[in-house]
Amino acid sequence: MEYFPAALETLVEQFARLPGIGSKSAQRLAFYVLSLSEEETQRFADAIVTAKRTVTLCPVCRNLTDGGLCPICSSAKRDPSVICVVADPRDVVAIERAREFSGRYHVLHGVISPMNHIGPDDLEIKSLLDRVAGGGVEEVIMATNPDTEGEATAMYLARLLRPFGVRVTRLAYGIPVGGHLEFADDATLMRALEGRRDI
Amino acid sequence: MEYFPAALETLVEQFARLPGIGSKSAQRLAFYVLSLSEEETQRFADAIVTAKRTVTLCPVCRNLTDGGLCPICSSAKRDPSVICVVADPRDVVAIERAREFSGRYHVLHGVISPMNHIGPDDLEIKSLLDRVAGGGVEEVIMATNPDTEGEATAMYLARLLRPFGVRVTRLAYGIPVGGHLEFADDATLMRALEGRRDI
Repeated sequence: MEYFPAALETLVEQFARLPGIGSKSAQRLAFYVLSLSEEETQRFADAIVTAKRTVTLCPVCRNLTDGGLCPICSSAKRDPSVICVVADPRDVVAIERAREFSGRYHVLHGVISPMNHIGPDDLEIKSLLDRVAGGGVEEVIMATNPDTEGEATAMYLARLLRPFGVRVTRLAYGIPVGGHLEFADDATLMRALEGRRDI
Repeated sequence: MEYFPAALETLVEQFARLPGIGSKSAQRLAFYVLSLSEEETQRFADAIVTAKRTVTLCPVCRNLTDGGLCPICSSAKRDPSVICVVADPRDVVAIERAREFSGRYHVLHGVISPMNHIGPDDLEIKSLLDRVAGGGVEEVIMATNPDTEGEATAMYLARLLRPFGVRVTRLAYGIPVGGHLEFADDATLMRALEGRRDI
């Protein structure tokens, strides 16, 4: 017995394929689409196709862009001698939000993860080395996540970058601002003590 | 400062408009779309437009259908003398899953809810009365949810249906199968006692 019209079932299946969307949520989303106007559904569908068609990777930093050089790589205000290496385009957004960094980025699109069969060749590592080899780079900041895979990737890249004679740094570890000492885990506390500063 | 390419921002906004999808989830979904092949994104977009274009309401029971009479209304196996009134097409699915009901349905597309400015004229009530007035109906089962609005809607419809001389019934209340007495709320226990049966 088919419970829903075929076109609705198809839409539910499409939504259910999205990450974090279960079958109940997929149903809810499909019903919501039916409640939209035909114009609105067309706009939604167009947004999907257009995003996929027009969003490309910046030829220099591999961040997402509308085509051609990304706004950061093409900005004369951004210092080309400092490259901040991140795993994901969303990390660029996070760092930009802090309004502290004025250099440029390099997006790896993942971290080395043997468990998930992601090796160095699956990441934007060659493009990073080419950039550094091109000259003009003084510092590379490793801003991968402070978890096992992020650490390993940072260490791996640091070793690859050593021959180029650039300074390779890592984001500081410590207690998050606004955090509570009693809730900090042992590893974070240890790193916070190691990295203590004079005041 | 624009963080994401415009086409990606547009897609994030579209996802964020969906019910239950916050801005972080919308970002996650938009990135997932970028990871799909162009063919897959086209299929997703088509599913949205096609569902909206082809799914209509059955002219008799107002349930969702691919066009024309719905499968249940057009099935000779389904008893046309019993109509089960539900608030939502998803309730039809729930009841069909129980494989117990062999009559037909009528979908109200909501319940009377003064708080949300939904009155009787916003629901498929006239089409129900026309159906019953057309003759051949012996029983109308009120299967709206057992909450305040569902109850009120059932009571309201029961009063409207009285002049037609049909039997109007309500789903039984009680302890859910597999439920625990100790976790049942007072109202449910009271209804379960009221509705007790000889064994």
